[in-house]
Amino acid sequence: MRRERDSLGEVEVADDAFWGAQTQRSLHFFAIGEERMPLPIIHALAQIKAAAARVNGKLGLLAANLVEPIAQAADEVAAGQWDAQFPLRVWQTGSGTQSNMNVNEVIANLANECLGAARGSKNPVHPNDHVNLGQSSNDVFPSALHLSVASAVHAQLLPALQCLRDLLQQRSQDFADILKIGRTHLMDAVPMRLGQEFSGYVDQLRQGEAGIRSVLPGLYALALGGTAVGTGLNTHPDFALQVCRMLTERLSLPLRPAENAFAALAGQEALCQLSGQLRSLAMSLLKIANDIRWMGSGPRAGLGELALPENEPGSSIMPGKVNPTQAEALSMVCAQVFGNDATVAFAASQGNFELNVYKPVIGYNVLQSITLLADAMRSFTLHCVQGLQARADRLQVHLDSSLMLVTALVPSLGYERAAKIAQRAHQEGSTLRAAALASGWIDAAQLDEILRPERMLAPDRN
Amino acid sequence: MRRERDSLGEVEVADDAFWGAQTQRSLHFFAIGEERMPLPIIHALAQIKAAAARVNGKLGLLAANLVEPIAQAADEVAAGQWDAQFPLRVWQTGSGTQSNMNVNEVIANLANECLGAARGSKNPVHPNDHVNLGQSSNDVFPSALHLSVASAVHAQLLPALQCLRDLLQQRSQDFADILKIGRTHLMDAVPMRLGQEFSGYVDQLRQGEAGIRSVLPGLYALALGGTAVGTGLNTHPDFALQVCRMLTERLSLPLRPAENAFAALAGQEALCQLSGQLRSLAMSLLKIANDIRWMGSGPRAGLGELALPENEPGSSIMPGKVNPTQAEALSMVCAQVFGNDATVAFAASQGNFELNVYKPVIGYNVLQSITLLADAMRSFTLHCVQGLQARADRLQVHLDSSLMLVTALVPSLGYERAAKIAQRAHQEGSTLRAAALASGWIDAAQLDEILRPERMLAPDRN
Amino acid sequence: MRRERDSLGEVEVADDAFWGAQTQRSLHFFAIGEERMPLPIIHALAQIKAAAARVNGKLGLLAANLVEPIAQAADEVAAGQWDAQFPLRVWQTGSGTQSNMNVNEVIANLANECLGAARGSKNPVHPNDHVNLGQSSNDVFPSALHLSVASAVHAQLLPALQCLRDLLQQRSQDFADILKIGRTHLMDAVPMRLGQEFSGYVDQLRQGEAGIRSVLPGLYALALGGTAVGTGLNTHPDFALQVCRMLTERLSLPLRPAENAFAALAGQEALCQLSGQLRSLAMSLLKIANDIRWMGSGPRAGLGELALPENEPGSSIMPGKVNPTQAEALSMVCAQVFGNDATVAFAASQGNFELNVYKPVIGYNVLQSITLLADAMRSFTLHCVQGLQARADRLQVHLDSSLMLVTALVPSLGYERAAKIAQRAHQEGSTLRAAALASGWIDAAQLDEILRPERMLAPDRN
Amino acid sequence: MRRERDSLGEVEVADDAFWGAQTQRSLHFFAIGEERMPLPIIHALAQIKAAAARVNGKLGLLAANLVEPIAQAADEVAAGQWDAQFPLRVWQTGSGTQSNMNVNEVIANLANECLGAARGSKNPVHPNDHVNLGQSSNDVFPSALHLSVASAVHAQLLPALQCLRDLLQQRSQDFADILKIGRTHLMDAVPMRLGQEFSGYVDQLRQGEAGIRSVLPGLYALALGGTAVGTGLNTHPDFALQVCRMLTERLSLPLRPAENAFAALAGQEALCQLSGQLRSLAMSLLKIANDIRWMGSGPRAGLGELALPENEPGSSIMPGKVNPTQAEALSMVCAQVFGNDATVAFAASQGNFELNVYKPVIGYNVLQSITLLADAMRSFTLHCVQGLQARADRLQVHLDSSLMLVTALVPSLGYERAAKIAQRAHQEGSTLRAAALASGWIDAAQLDEILRPERMLAPDRN
Repeated sequence: MRRERDSLGEVEVADDAFWGAQTQRSLHFFAIGEERMPLPIIHALAQIKAAAARVNGKLGLLAANLVEPIAQAADEVAAGQWDAQFPLRVWQTGSGTQSNMNVNEVIANLANECLGAARGSKNPVHPNDHVNLGQSSNDVFPSALHLSVASAVHAQLLPALQCLRDLLQQRSQDFADILKIGRTHLMDAVPMRLGQEFSGYVDQLRQGEAGIRSVLPGLYALALGGTAVGTGLNTHPDFALQVCRMLTERLSLPLRPAENAFAALAGQEALCQLSGQLRSLAMSLLKIANDIRWMGSGPRAGLGELALPENEPGSSIMPGKVNPTQAEALSMVCAQVFGNDATVAFAASQGNFELNVYKPVIGYNVLQSITLLADAMRSFTLHCVQGLQARADRLQVHLDSSLMLVTALVPSLGYERAAKIAQRAHQEGSTLRAAALASGWIDAAQLDEILRPERMLAPDRN
Repeated sequence: MRRERDSLGEVEVADDAFWGAQTQRSLHFFAIGEERMPLPIIHALAQIKAAAARVNGKLGLLAANLVEPIAQAADEVAAGQWDAQFPLRVWQTGSGTQSNMNVNEVIANLANECLGAARGSKNPVHPNDHVNLGQSSNDVFPSALHLSVASAVHAQLLPALQCLRDLLQQRSQDFADILKIGRTHLMDAVPMRLGQEFSGYVDQLRQGEAGIRSVLPGLYALALGGTAVGTGLNTHPDFALQVCRMLTERLSLPLRPAENAFAALAGQEALCQLSGQLRSLAMSLLKIANDIRWMGSGPRAGLGELALPENEPGSSIMPGKVNPTQAEALSMVCAQVFGNDATVAFAASQGNFELNVYKPVIGYNVLQSITLLADAMRSFTLHCVQGLQARADRLQVHLDSSLMLVTALVPSLGYERAAKIAQRAHQEGSTLRAAALASGWIDAAQLDEILRPERMLAPDRN
Repeated sequence: MRRERDSLGEVEVADDAFWGAQTQRSLHFFAIGEERMPLPIIHALAQIKAAAARVNGKLGLLAANLVEPIAQAADEVAAGQWDAQFPLRVWQTGSGTQSNMNVNEVIANLANECLGAARGSKNPVHPNDHVNLGQSSNDVFPSALHLSVASAVHAQLLPALQCLRDLLQQRSQDFADILKIGRTHLMDAVPMRLGQEFSGYVDQLRQGEAGIRSVLPGLYALALGGTAVGTGLNTHPDFALQVCRMLTERLSLPLRPAENAFAALAGQEALCQLSGQLRSLAMSLLKIANDIRWMGSGPRAGLGELALPENEPGSSIMPGKVNPTQAEALSMVCAQVFGNDATVAFAASQGNFELNVYKPVIGYNVLQSITLLADAMRSFTLHCVQGLQARADRLQVHLDSSLMLVTALVPSLGYERAAKIAQRAHQEGSTLRAAALASGWIDAAQLDEILRPERMLAPDRN
Repeated sequence: MRRERDSLGEVEVADDAFWGAQTQRSLHFFAIGEERMPLPIIHALAQIKAAAARVNGKLGLLAANLVEPIAQAADEVAAGQWDAQFPLRVWQTGSGTQSNMNVNEVIANLANECLGAARGSKNPVHPNDHVNLGQSSNDVFPSALHLSVASAVHAQLLPALQCLRDLLQQRSQDFADILKIGRTHLMDAVPMRLGQEFSGYVDQLRQGEAGIRSVLPGLYALALGGTAVGTGLNTHPDFALQVCRMLTERLSLPLRPAENAFAALAGQEALCQLSGQLRSLAMSLLKIANDIRWMGSGPRAGLGELALPENEPGSSIMPGKVNPTQAEALSMVCAQVFGNDATVAFAASQGNFELNVYKPVIGYNVLQSITLLADAMRSFTLHCVQGLQARADRLQVHLDSSLMLVTALVPSLGYERAAKIAQRAHQEGSTLRAAALASGWIDAAQLDEILRPERMLAPDRN
């Protein structure tokens, strides 16, 4: 053990730890749950620290000999080489100060060792005076949230979403010539193509993607430059812009200093809006997953219109059972995202004056939602949608049996006579054709002309 | 009483009612709660019916002599002249079919009377065959939701939001020269301008407005043309586009047929996304309302930095008490919008196959959220923000007492010495200046130069 | 118009209004939405005012000649005779002070007129000094919430819940001998009785009722006696207990003064817990409604195992269509209750120090949830469950076709051989019996013995 | 690598893994997120497996030589000796089948090795035929949820809650003689004891605990005995009761077979209700945490009535700052529990027919809520409430300055004159006493008698 100190005094830290006194205090005072501060946030903090050191060097605020040791240590942290050095929980100070200090302390110690100084010496590199130079947890932590979330949206979410959408589009084409009965209120309705049904899913996801993309600009705005309360005390006026430019180059994200630093510290609009869009996407996915598992239901006593891939034995007690497990996993993820969004919105509303102190819980939930949606969409794509097969026989039986093709008689007979025909067929258990002929309102030739499902798939051109 | 009939048989209807059998059945079968289908939805349905009649006339699908009687009756309904004829509850069939038929029946009866036929005759104008021509509840009802909501956003929400934002901007300028102590974690922090604090509110609302505007394009897409399941059976291929064009002209909203009718019937992406944005706005408003009521707290034993208008006696038992009631009403509205959004998202996820059957509850909640937010923002603007006064004496006392101006010493002394000075002042109950001088690390002249709040309001230029 | 005054000055009030200056001010300052303070809360306030006047009279605090005029006016208000006199919105001061004063003012004016004094004279009866005697909005308003909610639970919710449960129990017995295929993961599973399925619904509702009953004791605790902050300043030490006793006699609810008045003013535990239980009930109802509409799906291309009552034409475009509209209305109510609960919980968390100022929105949502659940359950009972009919033919076809009766072979063949048989039948499209015989692992006599659905309905006794 | 097989064929498994083919398949098909099935659920499954083996042995259904090898392997798993063998994610099949099979496979392999057979041999112990004997995932997994949750409530939640409540009760007594100004609507109100304020917190927690205890009986009901769909096919009629008795003895929880197995498989009432109660507790905790951090705000420019323990440096940029970090961590936990509850309720509503397939996500969220609440309450107790100190000077200044002591004048002067006095003092910035004397309505001796805060702390006895 070695002794580390901060402004409140000394603390014992394990010799092999690179963190310092403040991290150690937090471990002691916040033994809550097992959820660690998500690594993407730690990495984003380190990305900012690296850029900050280099910018502060250029601005003449950080001694030239300290710049690269700090920046390179930060680069290593950002690259994931020191992940074990960030043991703190999500459930800590609401500004993320302790994780910011964890990053400051680890980078300082790495840099000091690199410069030949002892771990814990805080000299020549001091975690606050040098690694945190020109920053406050209050601006750097929300900046790291935006950075990590924007990265995850681009690296994980959007590719998985596009992959699912592309495949559904493909399946929509695969199924373009397969007719089926439409269903409204769960009840038999008029005919359509299976491919049309899938085209609806594609469009739901198009809208979901558009929703997510519409809120990305807010995420590119970083709180940097606001420091403690938004005024920017103790930072250089050019600091934020230069750091954003450097990060933009490195990360290919169009980052910029936030339009208003006070809002950037005390509100959480961008993340709250993104969370709402993730939630809306989840609601669409739930509808799609439900449709697919219902179409796959049975196989004999359900709808049975699709065959789902048989990935694993479905039951520990019923031999031979195969279940729509991918749809279930995706559905559970959607329910999780729904709740995560409630947490995020609640948390986003609770800022006071110059700071919102629910930032770690916001970051944790948004990042979890992104990862779960991305992974579950990818899994659903590969292990379910890819292998879907239409069961032509069942689709045809359902199509043939429905009475709602009667709708096509309305233009010639009117709603009320058409209704009488459908009711008669329903009561007698007969076919629509038989009931229509029995009505005397229409003859067989006309019926042959009208009651053709393949002519009911689009607006009439007559 | 007269007898009206529909495809299930006859029903008795009061003589003075213009509605028919299906409306009467719904009154009987859905005696649930007191919430009526919101009138904006009824009016929007009627707007569509008027345009539909005229377009169907032009397309040669509706007899010329029926067009204007139907369209003019619909115009009257849309103008609110027959509001008492729409008694149905929100809690009915999930497709809104019964309210659609309520509109069809009332318009048919109005048109028939205009044409000299008896109420309930269904001749020459039939509610389904003529008023509903080319439509299904499944496409016309969600179209009416989009139409009514888009109108309400433009007519109610955005003006109220801009009004509040403009006034906050004005107050930000009014308060530009008033210094105050910043607060983070509720604790004393470094100085700032009161105007800066208000600029944060302005920016939070700017982001909220941007979020709402970002989802409006989805609302302009109408499900019209999809009819029963999305295929467009029994409508003319040009119907939807021509109706959208006619409505666009009348309403100055850039309406268009939905990109994909299947998604438009079975998903509710646009309303779910809008609801999420309304929720996000509510979360920002809650933060603003909380800040203002906390700044107004006291007046003697609280923060007391703002004086709020004294609109009414605050207490039935404590004489002379004045409370931040506008902030409270707004806060309650924000909580309501939060819950409404949960309902909307839940409902939006529950579509099956070709239809989502939670449309009335979605429309009811979104419209309530819009009205409440608009009204509460307007009330808060007029009756609270307008009359806010800064209490200069209290602001100064708080500014002078804070120890966190010590932060300005960090660039010269470093974090640790500065911390020691602040701790000493805190423990001794002395001023920061006294403790700094006592430390011996800095002299009076330097302190005079550095410890000036008015120099701590922006990034340093040195 | 007449002039009314309060401690802030004079206000013009319409001559025919019985309310006074504070109500008039609130109408002006809170023109937000259309939702009025729910009448059950107004009536409960009046019930308390009547009891308070009589108790204060007995305690010698209210002049004898004022007691009955006040109490009788309050009784009239409680009986609903003056409902039009309570126009205030839900969205007002968060303590409900304005509605409390509305009640105080109307009762004072009614009493004064009864005593021959002019409306608005405040003499001999003063709204604060006499009608509100021994009370504060801070204790009387939450007391009225508890009172109105407890009454609504007993008068509306529990009877409707029991009615539905009793009928489901009856239908469970009606369907006791009807076999059907069970479904897990939407997939065919092993056989069961339709009556067993309904017994599950009965039990879900039993648990829901138990949950609601478990939180009722908290609702019987009234904040009365706490007055402004919980200390009871300006009330008699016996006041609360005597008022509770008088109300208990009148209302047959076991009311008592809250264990701790500070919690009763500043927390909202009882209503938050009740709301959670209402929400849980709604979640159970949604499951039941979904099952019933899915069993009724089709009638030809769906599961089609139940026939639902045909209450109304289902479609404006598809003649003869009948939809599960009662299940849909109930489902929408469940979604509403879900969101209402989110609002209530959010609001309940936001108390500060001696008061929670979200009381009106809490009361509004809880009462709406109760009314909607009660009405929707009653409607669902009468118009859906009552008329359900089992479709024996479809049930039998599904039962016969399922491969999962293979499960009954596990005790003799083991899981893996049984799985092979089921897989073979699935791949070959054959019956289970054929595949089992073909396997050679079991003979026809054994199969006849084992593959009997009627022996698969309970644990084995061998 | 070795080859393991299940009913779908062969799979390669790492030699050192004790799991089998189905676990391996799940690892492949469900690479979603990082959240593993919570170990308490795994342990509870193993506790049930141990009891099941012993009961099946007693019932003569499991060969005597297999009983103890299976039971002892299960005991080891239950004791946490094999935690690394349970790598599956929460996001899997919605019945938890794969985790049930994971447990079955690991126990079978452990037992087979103990019996001298090869890992993966499935002989003499077969994971389905022996370890899962008399069970289905559909009954054993929800039983394990109830078991693990009930255990966690007793072992973690209730002790932490009682600890916090006891300490708040102690602090209430510590602060019994400290007067302070009450606050309603954040505004100065009438006096009270600081100890009274804390007594409110104690009572809020009492209600929260009562709410949680009220739903525990539902958790003691296990789905065991229902097997695949609730009928109990392939289990012995005495199995469930005997397993419950054995578990009751071991775990000191009053477990019983569920009243209705169909509801126990397809609904999730008990967990949904518990989640609602956890959420209600979280809402109370949020109020308490907010009060305490607001009372600790400042220390100079805030309320400053409490001093919170200084556990760590509060700011990376502002030296000497100390923040209410324990309150913040607790608040974030409360927001998380709020969202978790939304997930649970959503999930609980989505059962279909004989099964709810959101069980893993329900278990994950409820267990996370319990752990976080327990840990955060304990942390808040030890590191915040324990060290709270009243700041007598500030409390006295606030008490002296408030004008609301005017309320005590109402019984003698009436509401309106009292209001005039308070308004005058407010406008003139004078003391209440000065304004009262200046009014001429009361003399100095009377004021001395009445304006004594220490006489305003309880109902009047005169």
